[in-house]
Amino acid sequence: MIAIDAARLTRRLSELARFGALPGGGVTRSCWGPAYEEARKWLLGEIRAAGLTGWVDGAGNVFGGTGIDSFSADRPAIVTGSHIDTVPEGGTLDGALGVIAGLECLQTIVENKATPRRPLAVAAWSDEEGRYGSLFGSRAFCSGIDPAVIPEMAAVDGEKLVDAMRRAGFDPAGVPQAKAPAGAVAGYVELHIEQGPRLEEAGIEIGVVQAIVGVRRSRIIFHGQADHAGTTPMARRRDAFLGAAEYALRAREHVVTRGSAVSVTNIGVVYVHPGASNIVPGRAEMVHEMRDPDPKVLERLWNECRDLADGVARERQLRVEIRPTSATVPAPCSPNVQAAIETVCAKLGHTTERMYSAAGHDAQNLSAVTEAGMIFIPSVGGKSHRTDETSDPRAIERGANVLLHTLLTLAA
Amino acid sequence: MIAIDAARLTRRLSELARFGALPGGGVTRSCWGPAYEEARKWLLGEIRAAGLTGWVDGAGNVFGGTGIDSFSADRPAIVTGSHIDTVPEGGTLDGALGVIAGLECLQTIVENKATPRRPLAVAAWSDEEGRYGSLFGSRAFCSGIDPAVIPEMAAVDGEKLVDAMRRAGFDPAGVPQAKAPAGAVAGYVELHIEQGPRLEEAGIEIGVVQAIVGVRRSRIIFHGQADHAGTTPMARRRDAFLGAAEYALRAREHVVTRGSAVSVTNIGVVYVHPGASNIVPGRAEMVHEMRDPDPKVLERLWNECRDLADGVARERQLRVEIRPTSATVPAPCSPNVQAAIETVCAKLGHTTERMYSAAGHDAQNLSAVTEAGMIFIPSVGGKSHRTDETSDPRAIERGANVLLHTLLTLAA
Repeated sequence: MIAIDAARLTRRLSELARFGALPGGGVTRSCWGPAYEEARKWLLGEIRAAGLTGWVDGAGNVFGGTGIDSFSADRPAIVTGSHIDTVPEGGTLDGALGVIAGLECLQTIVENKATPRRPLAVAAWSDEEGRYGSLFGSRAFCSGIDPAVIPEMAAVDGEKLVDAMRRAGFDPAGVPQAKAPAGAVAGYVELHIEQGPRLEEAGIEIGVVQAIVGVRRSRIIFHGQADHAGTTPMARRRDAFLGAAEYALRAREHVVTRGSAVSVTNIGVVYVHPGASNIVPGRAEMVHEMRDPDPKVLERLWNECRDLADGVARERQLRVEIRPTSATVPAPCSPNVQAAIETVCAKLGHTTERMYSAAGHDAQNLSAVTEAGMIFIPSVGGKSHRTDETSDPRAIERGANVLLHTLLTLAA
Repeated sequence: MIAIDAARLTRRLSELARFGALPGGGVTRSCWGPAYEEARKWLLGEIRAAGLTGWVDGAGNVFGGTGIDSFSADRPAIVTGSHIDTVPEGGTLDGALGVIAGLECLQTIVENKATPRRPLAVAAWSDEEGRYGSLFGSRAFCSGIDPAVIPEMAAVDGEKLVDAMRRAGFDPAGVPQAKAPAGAVAGYVELHIEQGPRLEEAGIEIGVVQAIVGVRRSRIIFHGQADHAGTTPMARRRDAFLGAAEYALRAREHVVTRGSAVSVTNIGVVYVHPGASNIVPGRAEMVHEMRDPDPKVLERLWNECRDLADGVARERQLRVEIRPTSATVPAPCSPNVQAAIETVCAKLGHTTERMYSAAGHDAQNLSAVTEAGMIFIPSVGGKSHRTDETSDPRAIERGANVLLHTLLTLAA
C-alpha cells in the first residue's frame, strides 16, 4: 500500500509556518496581507516542484492538479484542500494541514504512478477565517459571490476587501469568474485538526465528520444615555454596558440550558462608547455568535435570544438594535464520503468515530455542489485558534495517509 | 451694588465654545490639543484686554490678576477659576463657566474701581478632565507633581503627556515650578454648573458645596483563556468577558444597596481581547470608578468590590488583576467660604441649599492649601459631560453675581 512521505510533509508545514511567524510561536497570516502573499508564492512553487500543474483563480484560490489545469464539467475532478490564512495569533495547523497534506497526497500519487480514473486537485481557499468575509474563496468557487456586495466587504478595522485585493495584485472584478462550472467537481474531502478535545479524550485516532455546524452572527447594540458618572443619580442612569453585560450572561445561560447538547455561543467582540471612565456608557456593541449542527435548533435559539435582548432593553430602559451579520446553514456530509473514509481507516487499522464539526469549514460550501466530507485528527488539549495549537506528528501522518487512500477511492 | 455684565459674559462663553466645536453642538477640547491651545491664546488675549495681568505657569495653568502678576506669600491672593478643557463630546459650560465668570468678576471689580484689600486672580487649571491625569494643573499648583511620574503619564490611547506638552510648546521639566509658595493663596471659590438634577428639581437657585466627593478608579482585568468559540465545549471555557460582565452587574448592585445614599459607581471603559467573534475572550479590561463624599464609605466599598472581583474570578476559574489608577480623597469645603456665599445669596435674594459635589473639581486640590468653596447653579435636566449640557442664562448671571460678591467679601 502506498504511503505519504511524513518527513516531507513535516518540512513543508514548518516552511509554511515561517510566513507571518510570531516571536513567541504561532502565526498571524491574514488573507491578502504581505505574509499571506509570500506564502502563496511559496505554495505555488512547491506545487510546481512536486510535478503538479499550478494555477490561481479570480478569488485568489490556489490550485495544484494532476491531470487537470482548470475546472471543467468534461472531466470532473476529485478535490481536496483547506486554507493557508490564519486568525490573528493563530496556530500552524488550522487550514495549513489540509493544504500541505493534500499537496503531499497528490505528489505521492504522481510519484507512485498511481493512475486514478479522475483528475485530482488540491486547493488553498482564500480567506477561510473571514477577515473580509467567512469562507470567501470556497464560496466564490461553489456558489459565486454577488459582485454588488464585494465593494462593501470590509474587515472589523474598516479595511476594505477591494483595497486589500488590489494591494495583493488582484482585480476584485475577477472574483465572479472563480465560480466553477456545474459538475466540475466529482467529490471533496478535507483533512483538518479537530480543534476540540473530543477525539483526544476518547482516544480515537480519526474523526469522520457527519455534519458541519451552522454559525449565526449578529451585532447586538444596546443604546442608553451617556451621562456624567458622578452627578447622575444611580436610579436615573440608562447604562448601555450593564444591559450588554446582563444580555451576555443570560444568553449564555439560555443557550447552555435550552440549546442542544452541542449548541455553543460566544460574545467575542465588545465595544463600549464613549469609553471614558467618568461617562456612563451610552452605547455598547457586541458580536454574538451561535453554532449548532441542527438548523431548527439554531433558528429557535436565535429567536429566543432576540426576545431576551428585547426584554433586557425594556427592563433597563434601553433600546436594542439587532443586525444579523452572517448565517451559514448547517451542512451534512456525504454518506458515501463518510463510508469511504471509514473503509480506509478499517484497512489501515485506525479507530474512528462519527462526529460533527463545531467549526465552520470550506467543506460546507463544497457540500452544496458535490459529495463532500471531512477527516479530523486529534488536537493536543483540544486547543485551536491559539499560538500553541498542535497535533501529534503520528496523528498528522495517520491523517495524511487516510486522506491519500480516501482520495484514491473517490478517484478510482 | 455692583454687578457683572451678563451680555459680555455670554459673548465670551460663545466665543470660547468655538474652539473644538462639534458640528452637532458641544465641544471636544482636550488639554494640550490644537483646539485647547487656540482657546488658551484667546483667553490670554481676553484677560489682557480686560485690564488684568496675564501669565502662564509651568503646568500650563493660565492666570489673570488684578494687583498681582505672580503668586507670593508676601501678598496672599483670593483666587477663583476652573478649567477650559472638556471631556470628548462635552458641553460648553463645564469648566468654561467658572473661568469666564471669574474673568468677568475681576473685570467688573477693575472697571468699578472697587479696591479690595487682597489681590485677586482667576485661573484656568490644566487638564481638569484628566486626559493625562485628573486635576493636573491644580494638583501641580497646590501639592506639586513628582517629576518622576511625569514621563509615565499617558492618555488611555497611549499618548504621553510629555509629547502632548512639547507639541503645545511646553517643557515638561517646568511642571514642578508651578507649585505655589505656601501661604500665597488666601482663599478660593469656584463657580460651576451642578452637573446633576438636584437644584433644578428642588427649585433652588444656588448650591453651596459642603464637600467634594472622593473618586477612586481602578483597572480591573479578568484573565481567562482564548479558545476556539466553536470547538471548545461550553463547560470548559474560561471566558474573561463573562467574568467582567458578572462583576459589572454585581459591583453596581453592591454599591447601590450597601453604599451610602449618595454613593455612585461606573464602568465606562471596557476592552475585550483578542476581540474576534470566533475566539472566546481571553482577557477583559475595565476601568471601575466609585465616588462618595465620605472617605470611610469609599474605603469600605473599595475593599468589598475587591473581594467581589476575587469571588467572581474564583467561581469562573479566571484570574483577576486589580490596579488602582487614581484616588482622590473627599474634600470638605471651608465653613467660612460657605457662610460667605450664603450671606451674599441672602443679600441678593437667592434661595440656597447646602449640597455635596458628586463630581471632582479643582477646588478639592485648593482645599488642601487654603479655605476653599464652590458655588453651583442648576444644570438643565441635570445633564453634563454631554453635548447638550446647558443652564438657564438667568442662572448663569445669578451665579456670576454671587461669585462677584463672594470674591469681594473674601478679599475685603
